[in-house]
Formats: sequence, structure tokens, C-alpha cells
Amino acid sequence: MATPPVRRELDALRWRDVAVLEYKRDGSAPFRDVTRQVLFDLPTLACQLRYFEVAPGGHTTLERHAHAHAVVIERGRGRVLVGDTLHDVAPHDLVHVPAMTWHQFVAADDAPLGFLCMVNADRDRPQLPTAEDLERLLRDPAIAALVRT
Amino acid sequence: MATPPVRRELDALRWRDVAVLEYKRDGSAPFRDVTRQVLFDLPTLACQLRYFEVAPGGHTTLERHAHAHAVVIERGRGRVLVGDTLHDVAPHDLVHVPAMTWHQFVAADDAPLGFLCMVNADRDRPQLPTAEDLERLLRDPAIAALVRT
Repeated sequence: MATPPVRRELDALRWRDVAVLEYKRDGSAPFRDVTRQVLFDLPTLACQLRYFEVAPGGHTTLERHAHAHAVVIERGRGRVLVGDTLHDVAPHDLVHVPAMTWHQFVAADDAPLGFLCMVNADRDRPQLPTAEDLERLLRDPAIAALVRT
Repeated sequence: MATPPVRRELDALRWRDVAVLEYKRDGSAPFRDVTRQVLFDLPTLACQLRYFEVAPGGHTTLERHAHAHAVVIERGRGRVLVGDTLHDVAPHDLVHVPAMTWHQFVAADDAPLGFLCMVNADRDRPQLPTAEDLERLLRDPAIAALVRT
């Protein structure tokens, strides 16, 4: 279906003609309570823009890949792991996940975490951490306390 | 300068390490009271993400180009011309400007209009309407009432 010129927000961060999708196929990777909406996926644009929402207490997959993420937080709050640093995030904060950098988005226990994410339309598949990667990452007690695996 | 992993919002839609730029070089095209901030411009991403803010009563340039825009409204309200249709817009509304489609973003008289805009990093320069283009566009009285030239 052609993408119409304007799609109004119907409910908070929900739009007509934008399907609320599973984040990933169940069992394909560890995650909890995440939805995915593809806002723009056009042959004329070299990137896609998606909106992800992590429910309170939920988290995205801890992963890395050759493609980068450009993220704008839109709703709620939580913490983000990028490489080996943790960051509190709130609406309008900007998150840059460089290539081949471990990352995870974790919602607060009492608030969702919703964010726009721009990625190249043509991109590689995410990689999950090996036992060795995890061992190295979780040596930092602050990261060990946040990261969900 | 490398884009840091997280840039917190400092003030409403203003960030440390993100310069508030002129929308366009003064006199290069008609516009009024617009700022531009480039949020993400990375060699690893095929698109840029920018934040534009039109002050109350202001407007972007009426223009078209071969590249498309994918827009998410973030702040305030206003009206958008896309092709030959006008749309009221408010936060989180999605705007798709297809290739070679006349478009203009006009803030309300009493509110700003702020929006994220995704574009291909490699793109053509905008075209301004000729007198003929304008004559055709402004035949519609609703468009004539909104459009600023």
C-alpha cells in the first residue's frame, strides 16, 4: 500500500495504517515486552524509520551488528547500554549506536521506553553475544545489574 | 567530532553538541523563522535525521525535489501542504513527502511547529516553483490561503 501523505496519531504512539508488530519472532533471541512499528519504509529512502516501545520492566535484545542505529527517545524512561557505558534516557534524548557495538534498551520498572530508530534499509543481521562476550561485558557490576540476557 | 553515544535534551528540542543552524542561507529561497539542527549525519547511515522548528507564524520554503522526506511532528501545531492537499498536524503525526511533490510546513500563528525529518544523505537540491507552477497551485483557494511565497 502506498504511504499516505499524512498519518495522524490515533492513540499515544499508535497510527492508522501502521501495524503493531512483534519485535522479533518469538524464541529467535532474548527480549521482553517490545513492540515494533515500521513508520517509513519507502523505496525512495535509503533508511527505514521504526518506532519501538518497551513495556515497563521489558528490554530489547542485547546484540550488535555492522549497521548503526540513530535513535530519538519519544516516551517514558529507561536505561541504555551502548558499548560499555550505561545511560539514563528520557524523551528527546539522542542515542547513537555505532557499528559492532553491544547495545540494549531497558525500560524502567514503572515506565515504558518508546523510541524512534533510523537504520539503513540494507543492513546485516544482529549478532548475539557469545558466552565469552557476556563474561567480558558482565565484569562491570553496573552493567551486570542492568543487562538482561 | 564523533557523535557521542547519548546526547541528552538540554532545553526543549535543544541538545548539547547540536548546533542551531539557519534553515537556509538568507536570501537563497523564501522562508520565515525556521531553525535547523542536524541530529544524525553519520558515514555509517545512508540517511540524515534533522530537527526543524518553525516559529509561530513562520513557514518553510515551498519547494520540491527528487528526494523524499519522512517526517515525524514533535512539537506544536500547524499545517502542511503535500502535493495539492493540506493537512493539520500535531505531535507524532507522520508526514510523507514523495519525490517531486510540492510541500510546505506552516506553523500556527500561536504555536511553533517542530519536526524530525529523515532524508537520504545523497540527495538533489530543492527546486522553487516557477510562476506557472504557482499559478496552478494557487488556483485552489484553500491552498492560496495557506501557502506562503
